[in-house]
Amino acid sequence: MNDEETRWLSSMEQRAWRAYLDAYRLLEHRLDRELQSFGLSINDYQILVNLSESPEHRMRMSDLASATIQSRSRLSHQISRMEAAGLVARENCADDRRGTFAVLTEHGWATIQKVAPHHVASVRRHFIDLLTDDQLHALESAYAPVVEHLKSLRTASGG
Amino acid sequence: MNDEETRWLSSMEQRAWRAYLDAYRLLEHRLDRELQSFGLSINDYQILVNLSESPEHRMRMSDLASATIQSRSRLSHQISRMEAAGLVARENCADDRRGTFAVLTEHGWATIQKVAPHHVASVRRHFIDLLTDDQLHALESAYAPVVEHLKSLRTASGG
Repeated sequence: MNDEETRWLSSMEQRAWRAYLDAYRLLEHRLDRELQSFGLSINDYQILVNLSESPEHRMRMSDLASATIQSRSRLSHQISRMEAAGLVARENCADDRRGTFAVLTEHGWATIQKVAPHHVASVRRHFIDLLTDDQLHALESAYAPVVEHLKSLRTASGG
Repeated sequence: MNDEETRWLSSMEQRAWRAYLDAYRLLEHRLDRELQSFGLSINDYQILVNLSESPEHRMRMSDLASATIQSRSRLSHQISRMEAAGLVARENCADDRRGTFAVLTEHGWATIQKVAPHHVASVRRHFIDLLTDDQLHALESAYAPVVEHLKSLRTASGG
């Protein structure tokens, strides 16, 4: 690939891409920081939300990895840390060869119930309430094809 | 904080927030994966871009931490890994008590020049080219107040 073939970003595209990257990184940093006062990272929070919304508060590790968009090995480290903190437990299902489940503990359930209102307030304060309804609609419709495209790649390649 | 005080997200807000989170995570995962064929992570790439755009290809570590929106300690680990790969070097400036600089090596400079066209093609394929110009404009103007708000918090609190 050489310069003649490269379609570099126009200045407008570059501004949009930059705004997108900056907004996301700053927001992730801020949400993570505000969760730290409850002893959670943003990744911990995401796991707790997924489990708390699942039947019996449990999910197969492979499904949890897909839902939180990370590799099995990275999720496994994460779950080990959360297990040590008493938030989740691993369960092997004898009848099911497809492997291990992660289950919310009582302490994990109490934690997500306590923290969720604060996290929603953070999300509102630093993002949702700064945008108009029209902007939220525009954002949703802009991202729909991106999400669809990227999900289809994951399904096709398993990665 | 109790349920009566909590302003939970409306279903429209929740859809927009979800689309935003999913798009970002899927995109980060995909860009990271495509950079892996060049032996780089997305964080490595971001560091290389920042240094390559700076005078003399060098930045103070504290400025590099702000520019890439991460803590000094996390950046320090990252720079150590990149030093081991020969992409960057650390320099202490005797005249300047404000500490250490990170500098692009020749190998780092050659790497960013080689990888940038491929990365731009990835960004186009998985994001920019899936959106219309109107959507890119909408995105830029929606994120501007979010970025401004979050940057002002970092300046105010140092975090």
